[in-house]
Amino acid sequence: MRVSAPQEERLLVLLPDQPREDLLQQIRDLYPHVTVKAYQVEWGVFKVPDKVPAAEVAAATILLSGTALPLPEEAPNLKFVQLQSAGANHVLNHPLFKDTDVKFCTANGVHGPQISEWVITTFLAFQHHIPKYLDLQREGKWNRLRDPVEDAVNRRVGILGYGSIGRQVARVSKAMGMDVHAYTLHPRSTPESRRDNGYYPPGLGDPEGTFPSKWFSGGSTADLHAFLSSGLDLVVICLPLTPRTHHLISAPELKVMAEKRTFVSNIARGPVVNTDDLINALEDGTIRGAALDVTDPEPLPEGHALWSAKNLIVTPHISGASVTYVDRVFEILSLNIGRLSEGTGLANEVSRKDGY
Amino acid sequence: MRVSAPQEERLLVLLPDQPREDLLQQIRDLYPHVTVKAYQVEWGVFKVPDKVPAAEVAAATILLSGTALPLPEEAPNLKFVQLQSAGANHVLNHPLFKDTDVKFCTANGVHGPQISEWVITTFLAFQHHIPKYLDLQREGKWNRLRDPVEDAVNRRVGILGYGSIGRQVARVSKAMGMDVHAYTLHPRSTPESRRDNGYYPPGLGDPEGTFPSKWFSGGSTADLHAFLSSGLDLVVICLPLTPRTHHLISAPELKVMAEKRTFVSNIARGPVVNTDDLINALEDGTIRGAALDVTDPEPLPEGHALWSAKNLIVTPHISGASVTYVDRVFEILSLNIGRLSEGTGLANEVSRKDGY
Repeated sequence: MRVSAPQEERLLVLLPDQPREDLLQQIRDLYPHVTVKAYQVEWGVFKVPDKVPAAEVAAATILLSGTALPLPEEAPNLKFVQLQSAGANHVLNHPLFKDTDVKFCTANGVHGPQISEWVITTFLAFQHHIPKYLDLQREGKWNRLRDPVEDAVNRRVGILGYGSIGRQVARVSKAMGMDVHAYTLHPRSTPESRRDNGYYPPGLGDPEGTFPSKWFSGGSTADLHAFLSSGLDLVVICLPLTPRTHHLISAPELKVMAEKRTFVSNIARGPVVNTDDLINALEDGTIRGAALDVTDPEPLPEGHALWSAKNLIVTPHISGASVTYVDRVFEILSLNIGRLSEGTGLANEVSRKDGY
Repeated sequence: MRVSAPQEERLLVLLPDQPREDLLQQIRDLYPHVTVKAYQVEWGVFKVPDKVPAAEVAAATILLSGTALPLPEEAPNLKFVQLQSAGANHVLNHPLFKDTDVKFCTANGVHGPQISEWVITTFLAFQHHIPKYLDLQREGKWNRLRDPVEDAVNRRVGILGYGSIGRQVARVSKAMGMDVHAYTLHPRSTPESRRDNGYYPPGLGDPEGTFPSKWFSGGSTADLHAFLSSGLDLVVICLPLTPRTHHLISAPELKVMAEKRTFVSNIARGPVVNTDDLINALEDGTIRGAALDVTDPEPLPEGHALWSAKNLIVTPHISGASVTYVDRVFEILSLNIGRLSEGTGLANEVSRKDGY
């Protein structure tokens, strides 16, 4: 079989950090047909600054960018834009998105590993009473607590929103011996519908959707309660905040969780959970505990009741941070350059109809 | 093919806790050829107490026990003893072990899940700065730390002693995207030698030894240093304390770890690590941190320098606790009853030559 050499591509990198030569060189090594130029440009500016030569913008076929985007007429050769962010909402009104058919891809998936680690470590720390032992360490006291430890084997995690984060939580949970239940808005009854073509670090996540032993779906309260009453020891909230998910977890849902005293982990957005109802459920023991990286209100003000609620771990919206963020953005870019030359669908492509 | 019904067996259970009817019934349901009798007997007594009818001891073919053991002449039909403990050293001098060929099996493997969870949660908690965030929570302050977070993807864990605990740490580490290096005393160069026929909860651990990308072995300092210098972000100490492993990790080994500033996790026995050398390595930043569930001295006295050493998590030898301990002992028993009737080798059988 004769394979033709891929068409020459010109990649322009416009990121707010100093370009990292090792990452640029990786692209050159992997794709000799791609030439690379990179500039450090300010975050929050939505046009290409003057210091980037107009000829390079005009020649570019691929753009990796935070917010800086050329006008359509400035970049007539552009085929696709790889965004640095997991969301695209900040570019939806730019002419390059609105008035052309240049493909846009997000960096969705860059947060999967670190946020799933946050979920796992806060849950296990709670189950193994690590916060109490840290207190005893501070006091210099060798005291074994009588609190029982429940390890994860044969426990069940319910994942509310089975996207890139939830699928990596599922992978680690399975490795610890847990059963996985998944909840999605739309039904996923076929292997095709369970697949996720987004980006995952190699070998991670659950791109084929094979981990859940049971799938739940639907938009009604009854649908949600069927999921929440399916014997969950841990529920992980990882769906977007929309009018539909605002206060999705309130007193009635927490009551459904009372039978298993489900541990609640929220790494989505604070208002998905009704804060007052959560505090009540923690204080009266309806649920065994919770871990929140997001709160409502946020930032959580000094003196707020949530700071001292029983059996709760709170962190200030930090679970997505990782020193390898940019490395992973380049992995997605690299994956998509490969797919571009193969002519297959790009990962994380933004739908012009849905805006995400 | 005609399969003959298995020979009738009589199981006698002598455990320090009130016999759990659900666990006994599981055995009856799974093995209709087994009749079961159970008595609660004191821990630490090495004979069968009078309250257990002599006729039942005499008829027993299988015994599940903590410390209570009949004399050889009291139990002439006994085929195997399933011990409740992971070790067998407390029964090595009993006539039933010394003077018969009744098989003895330990409960090795019951600790794998909970101890591996302790290893994972303390490592991830350190990497994600959870102890510092718990302090900020106590103070009611929403402060994002500037400390960088390194997630586990493409990091490497080195497992010093690749047994039931290390193999489960390996499974979870792989699921988080880590590379695994294994160290054993004797070389494991063939698939057969890498296999572990001990007990694992179904689907857990690494019975086939397929997770490590590289195996190290040997008893010399050079062998150990080759392993420790193989780019380890985390080293997990899970080998037995013997004259050979006493102070195995001392200043020279910690110095070898300086390049990667390896995080040290010890769930074996305190004296495997030289405490003073560890404190120095923590204080001067040779290593990035450590988590100890075991210490030397143990218990750690009030005022000991280890309590306040930098970047350290200490817990009072509790990582093996789990409410499902007895359930898992019955799983091993059940596995071995099955193997007994199949005539295949029992799991965790104690070697009369090696005493473990």
